[in-house]
Amino acid sequence: MEIQSIADKIHLTKDDLELYGNYKAKIHLDKIEHLKNEKNGHLILVTSINPTPAGEGKSTVSVGLADALTHIGKSTILALREPSLGPTMGMKGGAAGGGYAQVVPMEDINLHFTGDLHALTTANNALAAFIDNHMYQGNELQIDPDNVSWKRALDLNDRALRQVKVGLGGKTNGIPREDGFDITVASEMMAVLCLSASIEDLKARLRQIVVAENTKGEPVTVEDLKVEGALALLLKDALQPNLVQTIEHTPVFVHGGPFANIAHGCNSLLATSTALKLADYTVTEAGFGADLGAEKFLDIKVPHLKKAPDAVVIVVTIRALKMHGGVALKDLQKENVEAVKRGFVHLEKHLQNMQRYGLPAIVAINEFSSDTKNEEALLSQLLKEKGVPAARTSVWQNGSQGGIELAEKVVDLIETTEPSFMPLYPASFTIEEKINKIVKEIYGGAGVSFSKKARQQMNQFAKRGWDHLPICIAKTQYSLSDDPEKLGCPKDFTISVREFVPKLGAGFIVALTGKVLTMPGLPKQPAALKMDILETGEITGLF
Amino acid sequence: MEIQSIADKIHLTKDDLELYGNYKAKIHLDKIEHLKNEKNGHLILVTSINPTPAGEGKSTVSVGLADALTHIGKSTILALREPSLGPTMGMKGGAAGGGYAQVVPMEDINLHFTGDLHALTTANNALAAFIDNHMYQGNELQIDPDNVSWKRALDLNDRALRQVKVGLGGKTNGIPREDGFDITVASEMMAVLCLSASIEDLKARLRQIVVAENTKGEPVTVEDLKVEGALALLLKDALQPNLVQTIEHTPVFVHGGPFANIAHGCNSLLATSTALKLADYTVTEAGFGADLGAEKFLDIKVPHLKKAPDAVVIVVTIRALKMHGGVALKDLQKENVEAVKRGFVHLEKHLQNMQRYGLPAIVAINEFSSDTKNEEALLSQLLKEKGVPAARTSVWQNGSQGGIELAEKVVDLIETTEPSFMPLYPASFTIEEKINKIVKEIYGGAGVSFSKKARQQMNQFAKRGWDHLPICIAKTQYSLSDDPEKLGCPKDFTISVREFVPKLGAGFIVALTGKVLTMPGLPKQPAALKMDILETGEITGLF
Repeated sequence: MEIQSIADKIHLTKDDLELYGNYKAKIHLDKIEHLKNEKNGHLILVTSINPTPAGEGKSTVSVGLADALTHIGKSTILALREPSLGPTMGMKGGAAGGGYAQVVPMEDINLHFTGDLHALTTANNALAAFIDNHMYQGNELQIDPDNVSWKRALDLNDRALRQVKVGLGGKTNGIPREDGFDITVASEMMAVLCLSASIEDLKARLRQIVVAENTKGEPVTVEDLKVEGALALLLKDALQPNLVQTIEHTPVFVHGGPFANIAHGCNSLLATSTALKLADYTVTEAGFGADLGAEKFLDIKVPHLKKAPDAVVIVVTIRALKMHGGVALKDLQKENVEAVKRGFVHLEKHLQNMQRYGLPAIVAINEFSSDTKNEEALLSQLLKEKGVPAARTSVWQNGSQGGIELAEKVVDLIETTEPSFMPLYPASFTIEEKINKIVKEIYGGAGVSFSKKARQQMNQFAKRGWDHLPICIAKTQYSLSDDPEKLGCPKDFTISVREFVPKLGAGFIVALTGKVLTMPGLPKQPAALKMDILETGEITGLF
Repeated sequence: MEIQSIADKIHLTKDDLELYGNYKAKIHLDKIEHLKNEKNGHLILVTSINPTPAGEGKSTVSVGLADALTHIGKSTILALREPSLGPTMGMKGGAAGGGYAQVVPMEDINLHFTGDLHALTTANNALAAFIDNHMYQGNELQIDPDNVSWKRALDLNDRALRQVKVGLGGKTNGIPREDGFDITVASEMMAVLCLSASIEDLKARLRQIVVAENTKGEPVTVEDLKVEGALALLLKDALQPNLVQTIEHTPVFVHGGPFANIAHGCNSLLATSTALKLADYTVTEAGFGADLGAEKFLDIKVPHLKKAPDAVVIVVTIRALKMHGGVALKDLQKENVEAVKRGFVHLEKHLQNMQRYGLPAIVAINEFSSDTKNEEALLSQLLKEKGVPAARTSVWQNGSQGGIELAEKVVDLIETTEPSFMPLYPASFTIEEKINKIVKEIYGGAGVSFSKKARQQMNQFAKRGWDHLPICIAKTQYSLSDDPEKLGCPKDFTISVREFVPKLGAGFIVALTGKVLTMPGLPKQPAALKMDILETGEITGLF
């Protein structure tokens, strides 16, 4: 269906759109500005248990749920993150849902789409060039070349760029120094774009980005460099949400895609807030499991969105629960009711967490062919005992038809429950208090240990007035703890905070636990080896 | 005017286009394929004398000529290169003509446009990542890390990236080695895109790119790495010509923009060939002066285009002729008839060169307010004595009205002259013979000296069968010689060839004379400092 017809469904006219071909469009910011005082619809947050190699299908369920809501007559918009080219070329090929629960045009979305990632890469690297140029051209701000924290970025998997030396080859090539490249989705530029409410807000956030320290150890910002206008200009189109559709023609905003460890892991603020104005139901998802994605959605994004979810959907599979119950990937085909039971404690913890936030939750059991009747029966019984609503979904196989039970139960949950959102911590908490709150209440840990450097940074940040910001914990996505091997519901663990990274533009402080890779590598046989385009235009190997 | 109305003028339907908003579109490759057997229209090549800081206005005259041709009732398409973000952010702000002879939407064209440059950057760096990954993952092809010739690229001015070390920080970050970044327009990827006639041709060219030598000193190609399919996939949209318009609504293809020193400096083959099928008159331009741009257009692009120009327009200004006659930039405001006379020998050489190719030429004298009556009279007289047609243009000030005399004379020249294109050299010439031909006949030099390395390379390339390719000389644009200080018409100079760079994908051998900078730097006060975007969407400082 042409994108204008999709736009019609949510009352967007031709003038509200910037077309990118017949199947993609951006929504003009002045339209968004006009919608500002409209009433919000209902917000449904899709999250999951901690991911396992067995796969949970969170995006697929999000797509299927949106289609099913549309199918039962609810005006619905889906808001998703946009993919990065790095993983597409590397590990997995492209993705935006799967089976009969997909977002289209999938090829475009997984390649250059509307150029947002490229605009971010360009703005990121333009800023890096301005910094190096400033040092080269007299260094009026006295930037310390050994303390430039702003890294370069590419939207690719390229381990050789993780750590580099730049400015080599003699005086005319600038100041030699150590540097590195992040994948664009890990860059603060992406987080800034995703949390900006307008061009003015974007510029205000850009100004606050700390790029380096000067020789006195004081922070140097984009404002000091006077380039926020040029950077905002490079990002002006990227700030507009992208409109596409599911294969069942539900409108979808695919916009922004920050990492869920080093950043907050949700699609853009503008996409979600605009969807809320245009539809009765907005379905959105958060990255990784609920400990990382949902926590950050609720503690970092919601304060800006000024709207908490009306319901949370936690996606599980029996396979994944069995892995959390101690079964190895190769043994998942075998029935193992006991493992489902053992794994259930993991799901239970995430359910408790949503209760803690005061949010109604429902479990979506995403069907796999290997699920057995006994396993299914046990899981249903366990959920019933806890009084948790649940629905089985088969949207990959059956599209919206496979999600109707879930859609109806979600609507029922929203209509019968009064959410009373309770934030996890107030802004006035110290950094240490905030992290303790997250670790103890959300992860279920015993406490937090801080490195000497982390302690020094907390003191310094407090003096600089940065401690009012929320915390973004960079942690393994595989476990509630910071040890990827500890599946299920680990107890009595402590989380070690190695270092903080202030992201003043994004508006949060990243707490690094363990080693976080911000530039992935390619596997021995990259997905790219199978990709091709024929003279007919036919594409192979992208999915 | 909406782009569909512009497309209507040249009989392109909605189905032939991929819209990028209301004012930009790409032309589908299957439409281009369908046009293959249509008759070609007339081709007008706009070139100039060697550029000076006084400015010649070649692009402005190209735009004005196309508008004037349209104005006098000729179906006309203009085909231009697309700009790079690096210089836009750096030295000069954006550009696509000027005054009343402009291409619009100028803001878009000078920012991300339709994403072609970003696709090229991505393909370039994906290839680099595949190479480094191959070496890291066992290095089956035995690529020598010290002999990787494929560099990374960004579409920015960034001197700190000219020479870098990658793969630092330990074993898991790949193989440490020296590397560097070129500006994207200097990358072979750009030249490949600009000379490809189809997706198949693009893939064939990609396959042939030499990226490195193996430990035995043998060339390693993209074909060996098996990634031409993935790279072509990344470039499939970028291969489609972009349609925009002049402010007087003449259709313009703005597509591809390779450097005119390290590459061949013209817009894409597909843009020019498609324009020839769709209009009676195609106006196109070549980079820098006629010694670099026109020579490469004629000896590198024409063999693939299979169509030589029907007329060549050489743009001059009295100011620039005075500089070639020895006047300093600061003294240009003063009348100096003698300097015009001295500078005329420079123009004369370029006119002789066009005669050498068998092409009818006309001089466009682009007016400046500082031109005096005496200077004008002398220049007219000199041209008359030589029997060279000429026309004064004031398209910057007056749009198409300022180019009518030129347009009428160009049409008259085409209708009354039979061009008989004579290529400068046959493919069978040796590399040395080809370079001698260019230097002696086009530059007017006495001979060529080759470094020891260049001689070794010529032998090696001959053995590898690469010597049938045309030569792309990388030389200063400011002089007919390889010394930028030698203005006018220098004599008895030799050109020193330092080194060759085989560009097997592009299909030419680059001969490096002197130092060629393939990654520019930013000035002390980059243009970016003045750029801004307001909440209203208004842009300032881009031009």
